[in-house]
Amino acid sequence: MSKWNRKHLIGIEELTTGEIKRILKLAKVFKKGIDGDPVRTDYLKGKRIVNLFMEPSTRTRIAFEIAAKSLQADVISVAEQSSSLTKGETLRDTAMNIQALGADAIVLRHSSPGSPLFLSRIVDVPIVNAGDGAHEHPSQALLDLYTLQERWGNLDGKKITILGDILFSRVARSNFWALSKMGAQVTFAGPSTLVPKQFESMGARVCHDLKDGLEDADAVMLLRIQHERQSSSHFPSLSEYTNIFGLNKDRKGWLKEGALILHPGPVNRGIELDSELTDSSQSVILEQVANGIAVRMAILCLCTNPGSLSNL
Amino acid sequence: MSKWNRKHLIGIEELTTGEIKRILKLAKVFKKGIDGDPVRTDYLKGKRIVNLFMEPSTRTRIAFEIAAKSLQADVISVAEQSSSLTKGETLRDTAMNIQALGADAIVLRHSSPGSPLFLSRIVDVPIVNAGDGAHEHPSQALLDLYTLQERWGNLDGKKITILGDILFSRVARSNFWALSKMGAQVTFAGPSTLVPKQFESMGARVCHDLKDGLEDADAVMLLRIQHERQSSSHFPSLSEYTNIFGLNKDRKGWLKEGALILHPGPVNRGIELDSELTDSSQSVILEQVANGIAVRMAILCLCTNPGSLSNL
Amino acid sequence: MSKWNRKHLIGIEELTTGEIKRILKLAKVFKKGIDGDPVRTDYLKGKRIVNLFMEPSTRTRIAFEIAAKSLQADVISVAEQSSSLTKGETLRDTAMNIQALGADAIVLRHSSPGSPLFLSRIVDVPIVNAGDGAHEHPSQALLDLYTLQERWGNLDGKKITILGDILFSRVARSNFWALSKMGAQVTFAGPSTLVPKQFESMGARVCHDLKDGLEDADAVMLLRIQHERQSSSHFPSLSEYTNIFGLNKDRKGWLKEGALILHPGPVNRGIELDSELTDSSQSVILEQVANGIAVRMAILCLCTNPGSLSNL
Repeated sequence: MSKWNRKHLIGIEELTTGEIKRILKLAKVFKKGIDGDPVRTDYLKGKRIVNLFMEPSTRTRIAFEIAAKSLQADVISVAEQSSSLTKGETLRDTAMNIQALGADAIVLRHSSPGSPLFLSRIVDVPIVNAGDGAHEHPSQALLDLYTLQERWGNLDGKKITILGDILFSRVARSNFWALSKMGAQVTFAGPSTLVPKQFESMGARVCHDLKDGLEDADAVMLLRIQHERQSSSHFPSLSEYTNIFGLNKDRKGWLKEGALILHPGPVNRGIELDSELTDSSQSVILEQVANGIAVRMAILCLCTNPGSLSNL
Repeated sequence: MSKWNRKHLIGIEELTTGEIKRILKLAKVFKKGIDGDPVRTDYLKGKRIVNLFMEPSTRTRIAFEIAAKSLQADVISVAEQSSSLTKGETLRDTAMNIQALGADAIVLRHSSPGSPLFLSRIVDVPIVNAGDGAHEHPSQALLDLYTLQERWGNLDGKKITILGDILFSRVARSNFWALSKMGAQVTFAGPSTLVPKQFESMGARVCHDLKDGLEDADAVMLLRIQHERQSSSHFPSLSEYTNIFGLNKDRKGWLKEGALILHPGPVNRGIELDSELTDSSQSVILEQVANGIAVRMAILCLCTNPGSLSNL
Repeated sequence: MSKWNRKHLIGIEELTTGEIKRILKLAKVFKKGIDGDPVRTDYLKGKRIVNLFMEPSTRTRIAFEIAAKSLQADVISVAEQSSSLTKGETLRDTAMNIQALGADAIVLRHSSPGSPLFLSRIVDVPIVNAGDGAHEHPSQALLDLYTLQERWGNLDGKKITILGDILFSRVARSNFWALSKMGAQVTFAGPSTLVPKQFESMGARVCHDLKDGLEDADAVMLLRIQHERQSSSHFPSLSEYTNIFGLNKDRKGWLKEGALILHPGPVNRGIELDSELTDSSQSVILEQVANGIAVRMAILCLCTNPGSLSNL
């Protein structure tokens, strides 16, 4: 396992497998303690974590807030509607100001792919990407890994099918890198308009038939159909999508026995996933949410204390 | 006095008198200390209280936030405009997610009567009702009780008139139960469209004449005329309401000497209550606000530690 | 140096030079420590600071929030969109309620000049003005003083030109008083519609020619052109303003060597100030932001502990 020497968490693509394992190990320490004894949680005491969320988000924002407060940080939230950006300030200037205000880390959600990388080159403060357009959502992929690893021990040779709106999904991209680096095989499944053949060049299998996509999978990761980001032309209608690619109890038999169901939330019940499966024992959706706290605690600790914490 | 064994505070209707007294006693401890010595206030240290407010509110939200922080809790606020509900998530799923995020209690304000009860059956986390439609607003009624009890010692045989928009008021319903259980007699007064005769079946006196409603009362509790919830047909106009049911200095003589004036706020000055009376020595409106902190500290403590705190 | 005996900070106009120096000295203690050793920062532990911001603001609100949290206060934010004011409550009632909720200080941003003074006469809680219309913005002027004093040692005989929209600027008014009391000479420069001759009666020099305004200045303080507050008639167009009064690299030579450039932010890059100068070594804009934390820590400490802290 590598030591962690990064100040920023921009994406999974650039992480080594060792770095990924380092985060997962520390997350496990925060979740489980060491030999059952809880660990100190004052690693961010007196530090200021700024949540700069330029797109709406509940769960990611709150999960980072809870993670930071659990480590005794002061958390400052800046949301788009209240920020100076509405007065025409650039993202660069907002970040420079947040740095001048003494932030110890900036957690950034932004609609533009690359904006966390851009900021990381400008400011000296650690930048944690909480989702940048259709590019990456690294904390989501890490909590997905954590959840699967907790269930399976390790991911070597496992087959995971990511189903739905791959084209527009930062979750799919981050998970592809995360799962591949941990030894799993990724299939992207969905209609050809949302899962173009070009994804094969990344190393993924591409599949346009639901049954074919499901039958070998050890886990299927559903993506939220994001009405708000799609032009209408990618599929004829929601109900047509559901008819062809929705995962429902009639199609449950296409899954291997014990195959896990993941979803980053919020679930459109009855659209990409029906309620019976959402609430079934195969679903690990709420475990994902819970694990997100420990994973984000680990991320915040490592990025603000790179090179240290080696005893954990 | 009963011990407190409830995990949720949904309404006053289901509480025993002993349970009500338990809350009031603990609130007094937080406000006054024990024998004048302040008590420890770290009962919620390291706990996460989530304020889930699906309707606008300043004072209730802030009072719960201050109460929780005074007990050293971490407070997470989720307001409707920033929540995933705008992405079509159900209340059930939002609550399940908040539970998965490690909440130790959820304080819920919602426009639908029964939503706190509904959630209490789904999640394992304590649910504190901070107002559900026209159903109940238990923390408000408890702080009203606290305020009256502090003034009077006890409420046995006292007469309280609740005046105004009874039909749409959760404050009226919760106070009816609270006051009755503590031995007081409740009169509902106001125009017949807002105070239908059916309320007599609850055990209240119903009265459509202001002078008649006021002259026996030891306290009069004004309700806010809620423009935003009423269809226009319940009374012809605001000024007509004020002419007939507004409490003003000309009508002050209809009150018994020393009768107390309560209002849950915010006051529509000059509509249901004029400024002279709002700011008079009979008014305990700001005492109500101040007592709301100690009462909510007690509620949060008891619901998150049912069965304990017996030394306080 | 005077002791600090004020409970409120309403404006700079009424402060003595000694009082100003008292704030700056304490700010220096918080920024630098004493003889290099950091000082205790628990002066607001257990206190409740309420940020009541009735106008949009990012940096001032966040700076006060960070300052308060750095002193271990609980911070409660009330923004206009979520407040009861939308239900028609008066500012007076909102403040009385915030006081009843146990606030130890109210930091007020409001569009009406005089509103902090008004509140200070009603409530017993310290009121800190965070900007009231075009009247005063005292914490901004104090951090500007701090920044200049840190660079220069003292301000005696220094010449500062404040450039831009003087007429509508609370920053200009507060800085005029602050700089004058500290011994500096203030020039107001800009188009005659924004810098009327009447300002001379305050004791400022008024100047309508950019070159003339810049050439003697030891520091130039740019103001943000506030599109949102101006009727269109004060200048023909933004580009015309920029052509005549914008500070850009071609005009850099009009400045004395080493003259400092200040701006309260957010900068309209390319309008009142171009990017090259904003980011130049003469610019102290980000130092201003950083110093704002220590200055606001000092303000909050002094107003909530008037008469004490004499050892710092």
